[in-house]
Amino acid sequence: MPRKPVIAVVGTGLDVEPAVSNAGAMGRLIAENGWVLITGGRDAGVMKAANEGAKKIVGALTIGILPNSEVEASQAVDVAIVTDAGEARNNVIVLSADVVIACGVEGAGTASEVSLAIKNGKQVVLLGANDAATQFFTGIDENLIHLAATPEEAISLVKSLLARRTR
Amino acid sequence: MPRKPVIAVVGTGLDVEPAVSNAGAMGRLIAENGWVLITGGRDAGVMKAANEGAKKIVGALTIGILPNSEVEASQAVDVAIVTDAGEARNNVIVLSADVVIACGVEGAGTASEVSLAIKNGKQVVLLGANDAATQFFTGIDENLIHLAATPEEAISLVKSLLARRTR
Amino acid sequence: MPRKPVIAVVGTGLDVEPAVSNAGAMGRLIAENGWVLITGGRDAGVMKAANEGAKKIVGALTIGILPNSEVEASQAVDVAIVTDAGEARNNVIVLSADVVIACGVEGAGTASEVSLAIKNGKQVVLLGANDAATQFFTGIDENLIHLAATPEEAISLVKSLLARRTR
Amino acid sequence: MPRKPVIAVVGTGLDVEPAVSNAGAMGRLIAENGWVLITGGRDAGVMKAANEGAKKIVGALTIGILPNSEVEASQAVDVAIVTDAGEARNNVIVLSADVVIACGVEGAGTASEVSLAIKNGKQVVLLGANDAATQFFTGIDENLIHLAATPEEAISLVKSLLARRTR
Repeated sequence: MPRKPVIAVVGTGLDVEPAVSNAGAMGRLIAENGWVLITGGRDAGVMKAANEGAKKIVGALTIGILPNSEVEASQAVDVAIVTDAGEARNNVIVLSADVVIACGVEGAGTASEVSLAIKNGKQVVLLGANDAATQFFTGIDENLIHLAATPEEAISLVKSLLARRTR
Repeated sequence: MPRKPVIAVVGTGLDVEPAVSNAGAMGRLIAENGWVLITGGRDAGVMKAANEGAKKIVGALTIGILPNSEVEASQAVDVAIVTDAGEARNNVIVLSADVVIACGVEGAGTASEVSLAIKNGKQVVLLGANDAATQFFTGIDENLIHLAATPEEAISLVKSLLARRTR
Repeated sequence: MPRKPVIAVVGTGLDVEPAVSNAGAMGRLIAENGWVLITGGRDAGVMKAANEGAKKIVGALTIGILPNSEVEASQAVDVAIVTDAGEARNNVIVLSADVVIACGVEGAGTASEVSLAIKNGKQVVLLGANDAATQFFTGIDENLIHLAATPEEAISLVKSLLARRTR
Repeated sequence: MPRKPVIAVVGTGLDVEPAVSNAGAMGRLIAENGWVLITGGRDAGVMKAANEGAKKIVGALTIGILPNSEVEASQAVDVAIVTDAGEARNNVIVLSADVVIACGVEGAGTASEVSLAIKNGKQVVLLGANDAATQFFTGIDENLIHLAATPEEAISLVKSLLARRTR
């Protein structure tokens, strides 16, 4: 049986809308599709919302990649991976994902995740990104950056990107 | 619902007995107890055997922490975490585990895993360790090092160590 | 005697102008000021140019932070630090620097370095950045992002930023 | 001009004799030979002693690889590399060294450094190791492990090991 796709949802640890609502919807949709959710794992903002969204679905699997052992994982994380890598844990998140979905890119952490994803050749969906982020990242690599205005659009993009995978 | 315990099985990537048979038994017993199995994820030796042992049990969950994206994960790994951390991925394995079980400690990789586990204050069960390893690691920290001759003894030790956890 | 300031020069591994010329000038100016130069260490693009620029000055010290042991360091790197951290080595570069100078931010690697620098609270000088990068990173944190059009302007900024340091 | 050899001195952060005295002597001898000293960088135990020993020699160069930005470097460290890698910084130390010298191997951190060095194919000199450590590590790889009773013996071993290097 082939391994289930792993989809990363990345974004701010702050309670910023619509990023947090979008993340909750993404988590739920990822779980509904039978995919594994991977996030930065923290009990805050986009990470918390995505994991809680996923766990509304029976059978969801949520993996949280924590920066260190002092940081508490969201209660909706099934397995907490402790990296002691600080912000470099962002590289682990994107490397482990088949597709990366960024809910808002107004923060430096998320910007590092999108940048590292592109650098590692990963497909990225920007969900609800502002003009500056859209222009900047599209300018870096328009083949890897995909734009979505709603969670439903983002899921459609993920489906078509997964269909392209050769393994 | 509290998070499931995560148990690491570490050991050589070579086909060495009894390490590989012990790893297979440990994987099965870990899954039977409803715990999550974490390993170095590779399709070789102790890692492969532990994951395949676990997947004999319905509902098993196996996480593989890979050194980089060139290394193929065992087919019995449910979720592959790609670290691009080289041998430093051993630190991620032990940090993410509640208890670390080493099946044989005759190789440098396993020795680094046991050492890093002790350094991070993790409980370690040495299963079938030779005299040199037993003496060396017991001399470093006798409170964190526990000895088992069989997989059944190792599981008993893990149960009592998990019972001590405050969270 | 207080430790010498460490200044990072980051940028593309490609031979892109004016990034490479700017990097050569920055390396020389950093060494002239008696500061330590830190880069990604590779024998290519901005990294190579910055190290070669520095080594034109007697007494220069150049540190290269390599992604892994397969990558050859520039001959102008005095000490090569091998991380086996892949792209996460970018986090080591910025964490080790007092100030980070980015020569062009049109690539994903450099974008990750600037993002990680901001996330870690480091001061960043964007030298010759295009409008998209300027707008994006200024929008993330205008207090940490400083703009320079020439190497001389960049050095002036670094001097004033170093003067602010409490230690 | 070829790059200067980089020699790591690793060992406990505690004030344990003869490890600390040996480390001080090693630091001085490494600097006298014109080699670069690399250590874990902390202001304690073997690390502090090695760096202070080296800085008794004019022209010494000392690099400290710190686990994170909260840890203060020894005043005798010329350049502090901040990894935010926790105990995984030990992998960076050994990967960056041509030869690793362990002053005592009674602690878990040092054991991880020796183990990771062997795993990465690095030559290791155990200086003043006890019987358990000697037996354990020699059993893992007798071709990479070399035994010294005094700093002078250790330096002789380093010289012969450096002479073997093809680049």
